[in-house]
Amino acid sequence: MITSFAEVLDAVRRQPRRRLALASAVSSNSLQAAVRARDLGIADLLLAGRREEIERLAAENSLDLTGAEICDAANELEAARAAVLAVREGRADLLMKGLIHTDDFLRALLDKERGLRTGCIMSHVFLLELPDRLLMVTDGAMNIAPDLVTKAAIIMNAVYLANCLGNDNPKVGVLAAVELVNPKMPATLDAAALATMERRGQFPTCEVDGPFALDNAVSVEAARLKKIPGEIAGRCDILLVPDIEAGNILAKSYSFLAGGRVAGVLVGAAAPVVLTSRADNDEAQLHSIAVAVLMANMQRTGRLKVGRVHY
Amino acid sequence: MITSFAEVLDAVRRQPRRRLALASAVSSNSLQAAVRARDLGIADLLLAGRREEIERLAAENSLDLTGAEICDAANELEAARAAVLAVREGRADLLMKGLIHTDDFLRALLDKERGLRTGCIMSHVFLLELPDRLLMVTDGAMNIAPDLVTKAAIIMNAVYLANCLGNDNPKVGVLAAVELVNPKMPATLDAAALATMERRGQFPTCEVDGPFALDNAVSVEAARLKKIPGEIAGRCDILLVPDIEAGNILAKSYSFLAGGRVAGVLVGAAAPVVLTSRADNDEAQLHSIAVAVLMANMQRTGRLKVGRVHY
Repeated sequence: MITSFAEVLDAVRRQPRRRLALASAVSSNSLQAAVRARDLGIADLLLAGRREEIERLAAENSLDLTGAEICDAANELEAARAAVLAVREGRADLLMKGLIHTDDFLRALLDKERGLRTGCIMSHVFLLELPDRLLMVTDGAMNIAPDLVTKAAIIMNAVYLANCLGNDNPKVGVLAAVELVNPKMPATLDAAALATMERRGQFPTCEVDGPFALDNAVSVEAARLKKIPGEIAGRCDILLVPDIEAGNILAKSYSFLAGGRVAGVLVGAAAPVVLTSRADNDEAQLHSIAVAVLMANMQRTGRLKVGRVHY
Repeated sequence: MITSFAEVLDAVRRQPRRRLALASAVSSNSLQAAVRARDLGIADLLLAGRREEIERLAAENSLDLTGAEICDAANELEAARAAVLAVREGRADLLMKGLIHTDDFLRALLDKERGLRTGCIMSHVFLLELPDRLLMVTDGAMNIAPDLVTKAAIIMNAVYLANCLGNDNPKVGVLAAVELVNPKMPATLDAAALATMERRGQFPTCEVDGPFALDNAVSVEAARLKKIPGEIAGRCDILLVPDIEAGNILAKSYSFLAGGRVAGVLVGAAAPVVLTSRADNDEAQLHSIAVAVLMANMQRTGRLKVGRVHY
């Protein structure tokens, strides 16, 4: 089981390289991360965007674009469409957001005819590098206020990513502000439903429990002090957050307040998608690429699929 | 301006000691923290709960209760009522939750006739000790899903606490998952309204802006990369979170994932209230007591009041 970003990088360096399509490749952070991934031998590059801007940015940052295919595009949205098309046509294996507004990027990605929809919902997973494992937080970047059905699907997407990292039976904790079911707090009601669904066998290949407050989701000692039973309390691999604000704030607090390492990837599209933020440094973006390459390699083997919740 | 818990402790050790009423004093963490506060000369103790249990717990933990008044109470709820009554009658200056279910504690605190209501709303503020300041996060423990009016009142309560710490014009950032106003994300709409209220002079004695994602609320560099203007971006003293889940998860991630120091206090009651969790260590509880003692001393001087929002 992979437990750190160094191990992700190690794993993908021993696997076939995959082709990365960078949509609007005119962000210096993203371009640097993509070139580093190329130099590490984990990705070939397809750079979509205005050719002269990409070449100027590369020159300014002393980045060698030898071997990278540049796909000239008039503007950000066209660049995103070109990158998505490359993935659709099998000329690229994973997609990455460069310097482009998120809604333009998502428009190209989610386009009903020319996008990368599969039939699954798409959801985002943050990976937080703890001392002993990669802790997943979902969904802090795509689904705004998911209902119960969507939450269950978000869990299955994260379980798929955990499977890709070699964790065959991940522990999923459903987060709230408290660990008791409180009729005034809808997050605790969804958590109760999800926990019961798991006990009824409705989730394949994972364990689910909740509600948990964050302390008793990640700290065995806190769970003990609060007398919360079970194998999941304090030992979660995946944290399902109630909404996008909670997840986004959790991941960013780990990065910007705690100085921890965080990566992120979209699951549920026809190919892995790296959805970075301008404020991410290039190390974070490299780690996200590496996770996406690992996913792309798993998809190629065809051994893993996103599981279905039983109703 | 006070920027660390060490400075809070320094300040209160130079001020008159205040009397702490501990409701259900049969938690070893809380009792240890209270005794440490007594030993540091910042608080006298009134311990409500079953006398024999309190005395047994003190003996087991080698805690000297000399000088502490024990207020015998048959059960947790009675202990909370006795502690609240002591504050109402001026026999104690601040209230602290011991080993008692939160809803029982709140029942005693919020009782319309015998509680500590004032007319203000009550709200909770977490204090996160960053390297250069105490960052406030509100409300992650009391108000579940506040509306706009409640959010504005929560801001004024936190501003009051910032004033108590010597910050006369705190910078308030309204958090969301993104920094753009998005009609599909209600947290960003409330943030927009609050930011405009500030520009219209509706908030006295503070600066308010938003929406911010956490990165550009606390990191000047992230705000610069995302080209977010203004004096508040990246420099927030107070973070208003959209709901209890986001705030609770943020504060607990700082404590349980980042190993940071966190304290917390309720504002808006007739006296400061320390609302601890069983998973808090006694250092966190001591810091919370110290902040509450500082508030109690400020209330005694009568110089500071919770400000009113203008509509």
